[in-house]
Amino acid sequence: MVDGLLASDGPQLTLVLGGARSGKSRYAESAVMASRPPWIYVATAEPLDDEMAARIAKHRDRRGRDWQTVEAPLDLAGAISTAAASSAILVDCLTLWLSNLMLKERDIDAEVERLETAMTTRKTPLVLVSNEVGFGIVPENAQARRFRDLQGRLNQRIAARADRVVLVVAGLPMFVKGTP
Amino acid sequence: MVDGLLASDGPQLTLVLGGARSGKSRYAESAVMASRPPWIYVATAEPLDDEMAARIAKHRDRRGRDWQTVEAPLDLAGAISTAAASSAILVDCLTLWLSNLMLKERDIDAEVERLETAMTTRKTPLVLVSNEVGFGIVPENAQARRFRDLQGRLNQRIAARADRVVLVVAGLPMFVKGTP
Amino acid sequence: MVDGLLASDGPQLTLVLGGARSGKSRYAESAVMASRPPWIYVATAEPLDDEMAARIAKHRDRRGRDWQTVEAPLDLAGAISTAAASSAILVDCLTLWLSNLMLKERDIDAEVERLETAMTTRKTPLVLVSNEVGFGIVPENAQARRFRDLQGRLNQRIAARADRVVLVVAGLPMFVKGTP
Repeated sequence: MVDGLLASDGPQLTLVLGGARSGKSRYAESAVMASRPPWIYVATAEPLDDEMAARIAKHRDRRGRDWQTVEAPLDLAGAISTAAASSAILVDCLTLWLSNLMLKERDIDAEVERLETAMTTRKTPLVLVSNEVGFGIVPENAQARRFRDLQGRLNQRIAARADRVVLVVAGLPMFVKGTP
Repeated sequence: MVDGLLASDGPQLTLVLGGARSGKSRYAESAVMASRPPWIYVATAEPLDDEMAARIAKHRDRRGRDWQTVEAPLDLAGAISTAAASSAILVDCLTLWLSNLMLKERDIDAEVERLETAMTTRKTPLVLVSNEVGFGIVPENAQARRFRDLQGRLNQRIAARADRVVLVVAGLPMFVKGTP
Repeated sequence: MVDGLLASDGPQLTLVLGGARSGKSRYAESAVMASRPPWIYVATAEPLDDEMAARIAKHRDRRGRDWQTVEAPLDLAGAISTAAASSAILVDCLTLWLSNLMLKERDIDAEVERLETAMTTRKTPLVLVSNEVGFGIVPENAQARRFRDLQGRLNQRIAARADRVVLVVAGLPMFVKGTP
């Protein structure tokens, strides 16, 4: 009955969008913590340099012992599908996942389809964090332009399936789809 | 009576803002298609390179035979003024138009005034798409800074006259002015 | 009794966020002018180059004789604390202030704490303008990335204490926190 309880626990699928240092991760954590613990944190970050390692450690320190961390820099669909059946999941974040897929030259369209399938078959609340990166001047770098395009399309695809889409601005939620 | 019908068909002038790959064009098309066909698509894009040509072709494929395409890389006011009197119009987009004006060193203020006059005398629904480009770090490139300033001011001027201003985020509309 | 009157005059602390050339300064001025004059304009800009000098002069021209200008490129807390006790204050803007602190290698965390204290002890309406800079692609420049992080965190801290947070888009307010 735990699954059933969680399943009726409000929206199943939430997309949390935000800019850099907007407080989107913190907001997403609080959204997941509205479900009963334990919670699963799916980390897509790989500590490739010191800057990123420090950021990962800082985020982990903020979370407590009720969180189980799963690392999934590439196989996000697999991590969601095999996670404990009764736990709410936080995916942080789709932007790093997309970046990892690009670096490894994976078939991004196929991977997004796998994610969509995993998302829609999951029975517990699922909160996905992603960056909004398209509100600046066109980047001079072609690779940056390509990333911006892919990120925008990915966000649209996830948003179309989400029950709730939240844009976090200065730590505060604006509801683009659904309600608090 | 067709003009009158369309004229009472809800807001006359809609500005659709969004970031890159935000789904703003698709949203704007659906807004125009709430009026009866045929619809006029005013394209400001010029296929200067392969990347842009591919994008233009993709957008055109998505639209059907109920759309008449008018190319207006520079004379946007003229295209709006001379379009068939009973058709709703989509202008996609003001950002490329502004970029074209800059490249040709036209008098931007004068052209915007001409656009404002054409917009406000038009009797059928008019939907204009534009990019929001000012939410990033100050660009190092002076020309990019100038473009960002001009785009911001243009958006403000059109928004002030619009009945409805929509910010599209991940394919979803947020109403900044007016209501659905 | 004037202080008391102003203090009950609606929200005390308003954060006005916006992109470049979004109309945020103009909106913030109108918000301050809902209180009785005279008003205090706290300018954080220093005219380091011609581009900036022209912008400062243009903003000043727009304001009238009911505004008293105080320059505070670094000591913002001091300017707020010592301003005339009965006047509403506009701070324009936190982004230039942050940039000035970085250039002078000040202790940013300590300065933000001083600002928070000054903000929360102030008894008249206080409107602070700041840029939202995190919605673009990750900047290649490390200094720009650092600035983006600091600006994002600063905005979150001020927003958490504000009664009202407004995101200005194309000259129009979106209420992120509080109501008109």
